Amino acid sequence: MSLSIHATVVNTITHMFDSLSALLDRAEADAVARGYDVSVLLGSRLAPDMFPLSRQIQSASDTAKATVGRLAGVEIPSFPDTETTLPELRERIRKTVDFVRSVPASSFEGADAREVIVKARDRTFTFTGADYLVTWGLPNFYFHITTAYAILRHNGVSIGKRDYLGLS
Amino acid sequence: MSLSIHATVVNTITHMFDSLSALLDRAEADAVARGYDVSVLLGSRLAPDMFPLSRQIQSASDTAKATVGRLAGVEIPSFPDTETTLPELRERIRKTVDFVRSVPASSFEGADAREVIVKARDRTFTFTGADYLVTWGLPNFYFHITTAYAILRHNGVSIGKRDYLGLS
Repeated sequence: MSLSIHATVVNTITHMFDSLSALLDRAEADAVARGYDVSVLLGSRLAPDMFPLSRQIQSASDTAKATVGRLAGVEIPSFPDTETTLPELRERIRKTVDFVRSVPASSFEGADAREVIVKARDRTFTFTGADYLVTWGLPNFYFHITTAYAILRHNGVSIGKRDYLGLS
Repeated sequence: MSLSIHATVVNTITHMFDSLSALLDRAEADAVARGYDVSVLLGSRLAPDMFPLSRQIQSASDTAKATVGRLAGVEIPSFPDTETTLPELRERIRKTVDFVRSVPASSFEGADAREVIVKARDRTFTFTGADYLVTWGLPNFYFHITTAYAILRHNGVSIGKRDYLGLS
């Protein structure tokens, strides 16, 4: 009745980035079919004070590598948020997945009880590894993937929830 | 390095429904402050062919009770989607959390390897319990909670990601 933290985290991240990559393929095809520049989608947001699609992808990457790094106790690679094009964002996803896959399962030994400290703007959160995953890592990761999907849907890209789930 | 499936599922669902309930409080306050009927938000969608807020909440409930029922091997309660008001939707959340909390941890024995069959419109998916949780249960659940948040944000309700995370 238990889950491997390593398998859960790595499978979640790789599966959802595969699905996000397929969503970006659909976005690119929509831009071609409807005759607009795909960068319009990358700059699109659901509210003026929310992040645009490009930053949602960067944030999904940040959450993924931070979740793995913190739970496994390894250094989190720094990826400066310089991507402005779809190929650059795809490369960001690829680098993130490569890092996530590179961390050996053995590094997750004791991750459920490991102390995880997250410094936010105005506050510091302290979690056990298990609580961090459930109340910070996973909800943040799914937040950015779902919001990326929602931005594409809101702009009329023809995708459905099964594409988000990566089961089509 | 492992997580209890019972604790992971129950903590995720109760934590995120607490956060959703707080988001709905903020939505109600916004409707009062800006002088509109909160039912406008309940019927609001991000795309014409996406579900409105009310149905996102019902779908989060459906996913939560199905995830618990399938993994624990207990009957999934049927909640007809008749809610049209905020108090009714709050009651739906309450009933869902009550069910999720009512299932004993012992019922999740062997849940990681349990065969889970999901009949979708045109296709049947067969998973192990662990794969079902990672590729269906959790992504679906977070999808509906995040989309509910996005609908409120898109309509100008003053909330932030920390409210979604339930850490404010």
